[in-house]
Amino acid sequence: MASMSQSPVSVIEFATPFVVFLGDITAETYAKTGVGLIQWRPGECVGQMRLSSSTFDAGVPDVTAAAARAAGARSLIIGSAAVGGVVPAGWVPALCEAARAGLDIVAGMHGRLAALPGLAEAAAEGGARLIDVRVPPPGLPVGTGRKRTGRRVLTVGTDCACGKKYTALQLTADLNRAGVDATFRATGQTGIMIAGRGVPIDAVVSDFVTGAAEVLSPDAPAHHWDVIEGQGGLFHPGYLQVTVGLLVGSQPDAFVVCHDPLRTHIMSWPDFALPGVADVIERTVLIGRLTNPGIRCVGVSLNTSKIPAGERARLLARYAEESGVPCVDPLIDGTGAIVAEIRRRFSS
Amino acid sequence: MASMSQSPVSVIEFATPFVVFLGDITAETYAKTGVGLIQWRPGECVGQMRLSSSTFDAGVPDVTAAAARAAGARSLIIGSAAVGGVVPAGWVPALCEAARAGLDIVAGMHGRLAALPGLAEAAAEGGARLIDVRVPPPGLPVGTGRKRTGRRVLTVGTDCACGKKYTALQLTADLNRAGVDATFRATGQTGIMIAGRGVPIDAVVSDFVTGAAEVLSPDAPAHHWDVIEGQGGLFHPGYLQVTVGLLVGSQPDAFVVCHDPLRTHIMSWPDFALPGVADVIERTVLIGRLTNPGIRCVGVSLNTSKIPAGERARLLARYAEESGVPCVDPLIDGTGAIVAEIRRRFSS
Repeated sequence: MASMSQSPVSVIEFATPFVVFLGDITAETYAKTGVGLIQWRPGECVGQMRLSSSTFDAGVPDVTAAAARAAGARSLIIGSAAVGGVVPAGWVPALCEAARAGLDIVAGMHGRLAALPGLAEAAAEGGARLIDVRVPPPGLPVGTGRKRTGRRVLTVGTDCACGKKYTALQLTADLNRAGVDATFRATGQTGIMIAGRGVPIDAVVSDFVTGAAEVLSPDAPAHHWDVIEGQGGLFHPGYLQVTVGLLVGSQPDAFVVCHDPLRTHIMSWPDFALPGVADVIERTVLIGRLTNPGIRCVGVSLNTSKIPAGERARLLARYAEESGVPCVDPLIDGTGAIVAEIRRRFSS
Repeated sequence: MASMSQSPVSVIEFATPFVVFLGDITAETYAKTGVGLIQWRPGECVGQMRLSSSTFDAGVPDVTAAAARAAGARSLIIGSAAVGGVVPAGWVPALCEAARAGLDIVAGMHGRLAALPGLAEAAAEGGARLIDVRVPPPGLPVGTGRKRTGRRVLTVGTDCACGKKYTALQLTADLNRAGVDATFRATGQTGIMIAGRGVPIDAVVSDFVTGAAEVLSPDAPAHHWDVIEGQGGLFHPGYLQVTVGLLVGSQPDAFVVCHDPLRTHIMSWPDFALPGVADVIERTVLIGRLTNPGIRCVGVSLNTSKIPAGERARLLARYAEESGVPCVDPLIDGTGAIVAEIRRRFSS
């Protein structure tokens, strides 16, 4: 086991406003990060940079690197993914030009930005930083388990890719709208790009996962809520260790279970049946009690996009009744009902 | 979450026989690794290398690098730890000489061997490898949860440093002595040095911990037992994620709970009470069922070194009765009773 780290600790962080770089991708499928950024941080996006007119259009003004800089942009975020997950050679000249213009380059792809030919030199010339959001920050400590001030809610799920990030973002927005001071805490690359800061928790060395979660969500005022983006699943045969470390390090007071009601098994693990929402609630409480004995479920977030309109209300009602907490589809209903449950349970 | 790796996978491995390097330490306290190596692999140790006559004597012949090489040694293992966990400058010339003589250098200290002045060059000259056992091998995959052939027993514990490595080593020896084909699987630096191969599980990136455990203990003949060295503890606020990943990736048929009966709280975490043996059994079964529904406890391993002689037998009997499985102090009793329980439960 690692010894306690004495180094200064930090999270990944980049400056805004930003410009979204879309390269030459032609379909929205490959631009999820860019579309999410524009959706969740519209006020901080000065525009998009595209390599050709056939590139997918994210619906914001086209800008050059110089124009983006003049409009106040401080970062260029690669908001699209190429096949294979690496930056295509054809994108590199535009990225170099942006770095030379002084824009920090932010990416969540495989391979390090500094390895792209000429980019490190261009960044040095322009005084720009190269920020790989898949690379954990240095100096992460071992988890202490010490009780921190402020409140925390974590999104968990019956599987990967079932709405944990979206639910956390929506819940943060709805809490703030209701006058509750809340901060989204990102743990995955897309979340980090949307938040502008965070820790890629699945890339952290195992010994430091609880500590990374503690650093991500530090002491806060008593009525402040951190809304922490969950990862993986407690019944996931590949990733449950990430989920467990994030849960115990986050020491959440509350959690929301995200679930796709049509899924029958763990995605890409066909031999593993999907756990039920009740199983996840029970297991989350059991393990989460280690660092927060008061942990409780405050909501279920359901993906109802493929449920016939006539069955939706009945399905939500069934899950709400079975779990004893509000059940919403955050995309359709928002998370107001979960905000109300949080206020009721915690007098926030 | 990481995508499945396609790279070839491996574990850390080094060649034997070996010579133990003790540097200039003066007390056995700092030579635990070297002493353990000589204890567990006496037939493969050609001797010790000491920097001066005041260095602690591990009780094997003193040899020079050249003499060790002539005696067939293929590796030099740094078997002592200096204060601060780094290799002192005064040790480097002797290490360079050994590398130049063609001995692979094996170390488990902080900092990479290649960073020591002149050592990489010396190794290149002698055709020697530099092996940092704290650095995980490349190409580790994501855990699949696929059922593997052969049998597995994992040591778990109520805390860190309560006998998991020693118990696994003794159990491997006792199984083999009883005619059961068994292999020790190392997950920590000292264990890796003793076994000559393994994966430093706590240093693996979180996403790959279950996969690393799968690689460490591959398919085997039906009646073969892998005895896997446990890490951390399921109730440990800093390290439980390592323990969980190792448990689920190992998919053990059986486990042994290691426990220090005099400890009252998690070592170095005074705010966290030590769990009971029964708590650990229950939690291990609950989580381990995900990849092995038949998982069961087959023994309790107790550290009775500080228990008065007259109370020892009663204490062991009490733990055996409470847990329903044999309870031994492996240092005094060996693990024959646990071997018998394994044979009875699994017809091995």
